Amino acid sequence: MATTVTLSDIQAARCTLRDVIFATPLLPAERLSEELGAKIFYKAENTQFSGSFKIRGAYNTLSRLSEEERDKGIIAASAGNHAQGVALAAQQLGIRATIVMPERAPLTKVVATRRLGAHVVLSGATFDDAGAMARQQQEEHGFIPIHAFDDPRVIAGQGTIGLELAETLPNLDLLIVPIGGGGLISGIAIATKALCPDLRIIGVQAAGCAPVPNSLAAGEPIAVPTAHTIADGIAVKCPGELTLPIIHELVDEIVTVEDNEIVLAIAHVVQNSRMVVEGAGAAGVAALLSGKVQPNPNQVTATILCGGNIDGNLLSRVLEQAMARQGRYLLVYTTVGDWPGNLAPLINKVAEAGANVVDIFHRRAAWLAPVDRTGIEMVLEVRDKAHGQTVIEHLESAGYYINQGAYTHWPR
Amino acid sequence: MATTVTLSDIQAARCTLRDVIFATPLLPAERLSEELGAKIFYKAENTQFSGSFKIRGAYNTLSRLSEEERDKGIIAASAGNHAQGVALAAQQLGIRATIVMPERAPLTKVVATRRLGAHVVLSGATFDDAGAMARQQQEEHGFIPIHAFDDPRVIAGQGTIGLELAETLPNLDLLIVPIGGGGLISGIAIATKALCPDLRIIGVQAAGCAPVPNSLAAGEPIAVPTAHTIADGIAVKCPGELTLPIIHELVDEIVTVEDNEIVLAIAHVVQNSRMVVEGAGAAGVAALLSGKVQPNPNQVTATILCGGNIDGNLLSRVLEQAMARQGRYLLVYTTVGDWPGNLAPLINKVAEAGANVVDIFHRRAAWLAPVDRTGIEMVLEVRDKAHGQTVIEHLESAGYYINQGAYTHWPR
Repeated sequence: MATTVTLSDIQAARCTLRDVIFATPLLPAERLSEELGAKIFYKAENTQFSGSFKIRGAYNTLSRLSEEERDKGIIAASAGNHAQGVALAAQQLGIRATIVMPERAPLTKVVATRRLGAHVVLSGATFDDAGAMARQQQEEHGFIPIHAFDDPRVIAGQGTIGLELAETLPNLDLLIVPIGGGGLISGIAIATKALCPDLRIIGVQAAGCAPVPNSLAAGEPIAVPTAHTIADGIAVKCPGELTLPIIHELVDEIVTVEDNEIVLAIAHVVQNSRMVVEGAGAAGVAALLSGKVQPNPNQVTATILCGGNIDGNLLSRVLEQAMARQGRYLLVYTTVGDWPGNLAPLINKVAEAGANVVDIFHRRAAWLAPVDRTGIEMVLEVRDKAHGQTVIEHLESAGYYINQGAYTHWPR
Repeated sequence: MATTVTLSDIQAARCTLRDVIFATPLLPAERLSEELGAKIFYKAENTQFSGSFKIRGAYNTLSRLSEEERDKGIIAASAGNHAQGVALAAQQLGIRATIVMPERAPLTKVVATRRLGAHVVLSGATFDDAGAMARQQQEEHGFIPIHAFDDPRVIAGQGTIGLELAETLPNLDLLIVPIGGGGLISGIAIATKALCPDLRIIGVQAAGCAPVPNSLAAGEPIAVPTAHTIADGIAVKCPGELTLPIIHELVDEIVTVEDNEIVLAIAHVVQNSRMVVEGAGAAGVAALLSGKVQPNPNQVTATILCGGNIDGNLLSRVLEQAMARQGRYLLVYTTVGDWPGNLAPLINKVAEAGANVVDIFHRRAAWLAPVDRTGIEMVLEVRDKAHGQTVIEHLESAGYYINQGAYTHWPR
């Protein structure tokens, strides 16, 4: 198959992007390498301008519009990173940009897109609704549509990451790339397979939105009906007409990762590599951590941290969940006598054991405790599981009957 | 004054460190530059092995020990990054390392230090107590002590950051460096002032532990009695005998930053530059964000993100506090009739307004509400302050009397 995008298109894109982006760092994943007994690197595209790789494809596309097209203005539909990439590129090139985002798009992304000078239209409940509104505006105003992935100029722009990788890590053996619509992996695969023919490339989709395996089997893009994943940056229901054949030709394997694996991967990158990644950006790490991709010790392996635009609230919850799984929180139920002076001794025992009170509830009602006693529920912060056990034993040895809760897996 | 460390010592250190560390990335601080109308870069030393710059000085020192000294084994006292830097360097050189940490040192740091093969002794309540224990063990076992900053080999190792800076950013005008004991700023100042003589260097201390200004005024190291700051990585009560004269000669100005400024700086770096930094690592950003250092628009400015070893729990709290300041949480008090079926309509109104319930308390006791009504306290997540106001108005228009709380500044 003659692919629609060639290595020289990608090299031309790099010239175009020279003063617009920077070559993102390739960082050794010290701890993950140690844990898996492998040599793993992170391509930190989360530190790129606008917080993801999207500026590469967007700018490369916009810079190739004709004078007449530029004058018409451009339009794009996106809930996230494509919006910011297009807005930034349009701002730099002085092109009027309209971005349609779903009404419930994270406000941080709406604000960031507006700050880049784009006219933001909030419309519809889902990304598909926003897309319909974009097509309507396009017809009404004659705007030029900028696709998020299914455009040779976009693919060539994203491919510049492949050039940087092949140059900084010429002995790369295994590359793991998240897949949404497929623009990123297509561009990178064209560049890297041309320069490092023995390289093996594995694509990663979020299990909650993974149309690529079925589409490859069918030989044509087949949409999935729903998208439910924390990795909103790769929650694309249908791969592209251009990208699917490139994935078919150049990508060696596709794996899927669950949201709980992605949560642990985000926390792992934050805690061990001191980088902030969004769900999509951690998908490759999730594939490694979960054992779905197992590099052998001699293989030089890399994955793309493709985006870092995670809401502060979500990041905070992800960290708390990871800490609960690491045994850093302890849920304790006990009772104390229901007359003055009984709560303080309990709290003193907690302090003696070196635990920190996060929440405490003093509940008189509805417990099946003796009627002259009152229920106490505490969330305690401890150093680890062993310390938690020490805290329990310290309270028990002081005469408290402890009923220990736990934060375990909850069904959806 | 002839400084005790020269440019050629630092160049020699770079040769020593060649295969041990990597040149950390210099990242454009896109958003901060835009906000301040300046050209600001971050030297991302938080991504260095062991999560801080400490490996540079530690390895440079250990590699220069005599055969006899190596055989004796080494000892260091540290609550944090120096412990991990020394342990990693000792592991790589095959030297037996003992690290004394205070009993309440963050468990993550204890675990990380043990994982690097060091023998960790937990002793004493404070860093000073741990230091006393280290001296005792040193005398008892003949270990070689490795100082965290007041050693020419340590200073030369940290100075390699200055060489990297001067090469990647030769037009640097203004450099902002956090100061604890002064090893980092001393090494960097020697290297950069030799290579870029017109460079202006500003040191930053945490206001809760800032002995350097008084020590400079006195002409000798003067300790502060206490250290209370979120920036534990620079909470050093007394600058060094070697470092103070270097600071006096080469550093142009010292500023101090408050903990609340450091909290906002950590959140700014996480949310806008997608990097994880600890309190000490954000001190330079805090100096810029707070306006205590004001670069002019033409000045090329850099600061060192000197460490990223922040506990997940603390990071989570920092993000929540930053979001509260950004108006992302809303505290609402209201009442509903105290008979079945009154809570659901209230919650429905909250949902209609697009707010998310974080906490809800249904309180019958102790409110001065009419006796046939019950108090409801809700913490709601909203998109921003304006959205919060919309939520309030939506509830009021449905007939609820709303008493609005706020997360405001609390005294210590």
